Amino acid sequence: MSTRTPNPPPADTDTGAGKPLFVAAIGVRWRDLDAFNHVNNSNYLTYLEEARLQWLSHVPGPWFDEHAMPVMAASQVNYRRPIAWPAQLQVQLFCERMGNSSMTIAHRMIDAERADTLYCDGNVVMVWMDPATGKPVPLPEAIRRAVE
Amino acid sequence: MSTRTPNPPPADTDTGAGKPLFVAAIGVRWRDLDAFNHVNNSNYLTYLEEARLQWLSHVPGPWFDEHAMPVMAASQVNYRRPIAWPAQLQVQLFCERMGNSSMTIAHRMIDAERADTLYCDGNVVMVWMDPATGKPVPLPEAIRRAVE
Amino acid sequence: MSTRTPNPPPADTDTGAGKPLFVAAIGVRWRDLDAFNHVNNSNYLTYLEEARLQWLSHVPGPWFDEHAMPVMAASQVNYRRPIAWPAQLQVQLFCERMGNSSMTIAHRMIDAERADTLYCDGNVVMVWMDPATGKPVPLPEAIRRAVE
Amino acid sequence: MSTRTPNPPPADTDTGAGKPLFVAAIGVRWRDLDAFNHVNNSNYLTYLEEARLQWLSHVPGPWFDEHAMPVMAASQVNYRRPIAWPAQLQVQLFCERMGNSSMTIAHRMIDAERADTLYCDGNVVMVWMDPATGKPVPLPEAIRRAVE
Repeated sequence: MSTRTPNPPPADTDTGAGKPLFVAAIGVRWRDLDAFNHVNNSNYLTYLEEARLQWLSHVPGPWFDEHAMPVMAASQVNYRRPIAWPAQLQVQLFCERMGNSSMTIAHRMIDAERADTLYCDGNVVMVWMDPATGKPVPLPEAIRRAVE
Repeated sequence: MSTRTPNPPPADTDTGAGKPLFVAAIGVRWRDLDAFNHVNNSNYLTYLEEARLQWLSHVPGPWFDEHAMPVMAASQVNYRRPIAWPAQLQVQLFCERMGNSSMTIAHRMIDAERADTLYCDGNVVMVWMDPATGKPVPLPEAIRRAVE
Repeated sequence: MSTRTPNPPPADTDTGAGKPLFVAAIGVRWRDLDAFNHVNNSNYLTYLEEARLQWLSHVPGPWFDEHAMPVMAASQVNYRRPIAWPAQLQVQLFCERMGNSSMTIAHRMIDAERADTLYCDGNVVMVWMDPATGKPVPLPEAIRRAVE
Repeated sequence: MSTRTPNPPPADTDTGAGKPLFVAAIGVRWRDLDAFNHVNNSNYLTYLEEARLQWLSHVPGPWFDEHAMPVMAASQVNYRRPIAWPAQLQVQLFCERMGNSSMTIAHRMIDAERADTLYCDGNVVMVWMDPATGKPVPLPEAIRRAVE
């Protein structure tokens, strides 16, 4: 289904204020459109995931091992404006909160060529867990250092 | 990225209590898995969308016209448990709130064969808008009647 | 891009004549549509893959191990008719040819409710290889037996 | 399913010899991987489609109207080598054949940073049709001129 909010976005969330953890450039593909001719709502999560994994792959030091794997616990997306094809996006990630085992990553997605065009914002919660036990484990040191 | 919460879900949301608007049966496809061998987080939105559009296509009466189209304004997903392949899902939709122009649809996704296996819950906000003006319009009568 | 052939399909291929290896029932999802409002051409390969993996998971005996993994070497799809949503598909797989290391699987995709509606046909070539060496290895016994 | 051919590609097809119609740069996304940790076979068609639509959108003059729409009639892909993430691809399109109503577009997909790494080759057949009648129509002049 197509995505759009009826009004201009409300006053910016705090997440826009700090320095991003990471900024990814992502090109929209024609296949990201759905039958309403706008980027499908599920693809927003794919863009966020791409940015997040690019960030993680740039973290110096190990961000996972066999006893500490990140999993997604929640996602929240505010669709601010429909995305057409072709378009170049800029996905900005921010650390919104660090817990013992979890990290909340806020996001803003804007048009790479028109920075005042906000496509979405929101956040996702990542939790590091031990796959063997299913229990949360402390955040890896590499993640803490990358955020500080 | 794979999806899992570290703990059992918190006490059920109210959405589980009422009568569902619609229940859809959806088969997981192998391609829904990602490189972590679990259903990718973005596919949860695709399952919800499939259920929502099946519901809308069953609503008696017109649920959109050229001056009133539904668009997604927000999505919230709590990933409760990873989904493997093969699996049969049951997607339950509930009306959480009706506004003048918008409708909040809560969701619960469970295993079709083990009803106590909750894969996710959360909600999405749909807004009906006039595509020509970009302004919200009243909810179609067919939607109001289908919910009541 | 949408998919359609201008003419009725040519005289049926031989693959339609034999007994299928496997028949899978697959429901089209709304998200399989693209901006031309027909199932996207790439999704046909996803439907074939789903049927193939369902077949493989039903083969009695091991169809892969660490020294013999199937990989796709080629795909050929004739798009006979566009697919709309909603629709229920029936994907039929046939063994077209067995080699020492490879197997050609022909396919026919029809409408589950109108068997004379052919959506596509064609074939894919699967090769079993040793991931460590990148060399082809003999087809697993379980595959040979499942086909005979 | 993962994709790989057991041997180095055979001697190059003729399609590599001519001047490409169009070359597109495409970044692999993590979500393009499947549970075998390689780009899924269906995504190759998505990359080809992206290149094809970028080409069409650059054609000077109208390449479709309400009585002449391109549809895909067939696809053939030889999977030469698995694609990992991250990777930058170069998709090269060639005119293999022009008919009255159809055009065969050959493709080669290589690594943008290592031109001797061929990921796939093959072709797709596009046919221009009148959606109202379902009959093939002459290729648009803009397409003929763009190819010559």
